[in-house]
Amino acid sequence: MNIPDRLIQFILQERKFFIATHIRPEGDALGSSLALSLALESMGKETTLYERDPVPALYRFLPGYKRFTHTHSPLAQDGLPLLLLDCNEPERAGLENVVIRRSAVIDHHETIKEFGDIQWIEPHAAATGVMVYDLIRKLGIGITKDMATNLYAAIATDTGTFRFSNTSSDVLRIAAGLVESGADPGVIAGELYETWSKGRFSLLTKVLNTLELTHGIAVTVVTKAMFSETGTSPEDTENFSNFPKMIEEIKVSLFLREIDEGWKVSLRSKGDCNVAEIAVRFHGGGHKNAAGCVIKGDLKTAKTQLIKAIEGIKG
Amino acid sequence: MNIPDRLIQFILQERKFFIATHIRPEGDALGSSLALSLALESMGKETTLYERDPVPALYRFLPGYKRFTHTHSPLAQDGLPLLLLDCNEPERAGLENVVIRRSAVIDHHETIKEFGDIQWIEPHAAATGVMVYDLIRKLGIGITKDMATNLYAAIATDTGTFRFSNTSSDVLRIAAGLVESGADPGVIAGELYETWSKGRFSLLTKVLNTLELTHGIAVTVVTKAMFSETGTSPEDTENFSNFPKMIEEIKVSLFLREIDEGWKVSLRSKGDCNVAEIAVRFHGGGHKNAAGCVIKGDLKTAKTQLIKAIEGIKG
Repeated sequence: MNIPDRLIQFILQERKFFIATHIRPEGDALGSSLALSLALESMGKETTLYERDPVPALYRFLPGYKRFTHTHSPLAQDGLPLLLLDCNEPERAGLENVVIRRSAVIDHHETIKEFGDIQWIEPHAAATGVMVYDLIRKLGIGITKDMATNLYAAIATDTGTFRFSNTSSDVLRIAAGLVESGADPGVIAGELYETWSKGRFSLLTKVLNTLELTHGIAVTVVTKAMFSETGTSPEDTENFSNFPKMIEEIKVSLFLREIDEGWKVSLRSKGDCNVAEIAVRFHGGGHKNAAGCVIKGDLKTAKTQLIKAIEGIKG
Repeated sequence: MNIPDRLIQFILQERKFFIATHIRPEGDALGSSLALSLALESMGKETTLYERDPVPALYRFLPGYKRFTHTHSPLAQDGLPLLLLDCNEPERAGLENVVIRRSAVIDHHETIKEFGDIQWIEPHAAATGVMVYDLIRKLGIGITKDMATNLYAAIATDTGTFRFSNTSSDVLRIAAGLVESGADPGVIAGELYETWSKGRFSLLTKVLNTLELTHGIAVTVVTKAMFSETGTSPEDTENFSNFPKMIEEIKVSLFLREIDEGWKVSLRSKGDCNVAEIAVRFHGGGHKNAAGCVIKGDLKTAKTQLIKAIEGIKG
């Protein structure tokens, strides 16, 4: 990957950084931000790590997760330079109407907004964690066990532990290097996949009971009532949209979550079906095989609109 | 790994080989045998690939899977030298009472029997596929796409695609090399995990609906009625017993399948809880974390007996 020289200069010149990542964070957002924070501090820099939302329980095994603050006041007050990770517009990080003195973006999403004095965006990178790994190496920083664990978890999340089509030989070789630096694949996978609460498992069962299949499209739904029945919250639905993909004939999995305005939709696809295209039509975004959007209105209308849009691109 | 010189000599000296692997084969048995067969043939050798049982549908994506014959008569008739893979006694391969002229064993299992003119057994190897990879490289053979796909699938099976604790940096680096030789991680994972029938998925949902939790023990049940409602059969329940292990507090997962005599029980555990001990009490057997037995009588009595036995060893 080509790390912009200006990004290296930016990091070398500034002494304090405000590192932010997207709202409703997952492993790549959290792990890559934490690793970069730890790396910059090992160079003698100061970092403030910001995440609008609480760190989901699932990710509280990430070394240093308590470093995340949930107020962004230092960004404008102290005029800190911003490092924006795993997204490419401040709004995605909950930074609306904030004065930003200087900024650099490190991201791998396909939908790219006009933001950042420096933009390093690699839509072909499997994870922001891969980019941060390259950046840390380029900066000549030794990778500690804590950095390695965060980066491994970041990459594991975005590649489905090396099951998705974004798993390249480079990704596997980087993972090997991270294991040598102290990341433990079995322990990290245990944290990611075998730490569900009873309520979360019960919620999954309820969601699977809603499954409808039509023409290679799976639709599953979670309602507010299901959350209250199981004592769970939206963060507990992470990865639910991938389950119906186990069915051979499914090309697209749609997972609709009830919100005040209507439905938050997670789109997952196999192979060449580009669900980012669908998401963009509904003012959302994402990657070819994993995207998201919001649809207003009742459930039936939302389903119909989505299925119609998918049928359009599939045809 | 230390490949015995005698194994290399054996392969160089002989011209024809009979390659056999264990009965009821999975990805490591099949993939490592296929890769070795393809590799030896690329050296100008002749190989007969033997597997007592049919290749399961799940593994019919492995390049060359049709090469498996299901009769072992050439072994004794033609006095072929045997290469025994992923097991270390001929009986495990369905080769009872067969005259064997010369033999070499390539295996990674812990229980080691006295068999083989040459024994290459590495209990610490994550998969026989890893050993065959090293052997092929040592023999100076170029790894083709077909060999790479077989070896990648072998390693993916035995490491749960890099989720189990046997995933080392070497394993990940070998996987990276196999991707460079043409193995496609996304396609292989798709074949292994995303080829369920609709009926099988529906069966899983029904089974999850039966979940009961008590004191760290999960109980799920499948009845004959569920099979007929979903058009499935007992083979479709493979791996079902592992799902409740996703719940953090679960130490033991019991999966009861209705049979004519009563209930066939799959026991799975995490960590140190030894379910083989439980299975043995009901005249079954298995390993520490995966065992099985049969219990006669009605469902309620079967559950009560099992839970009582587990509470006994846990306490």
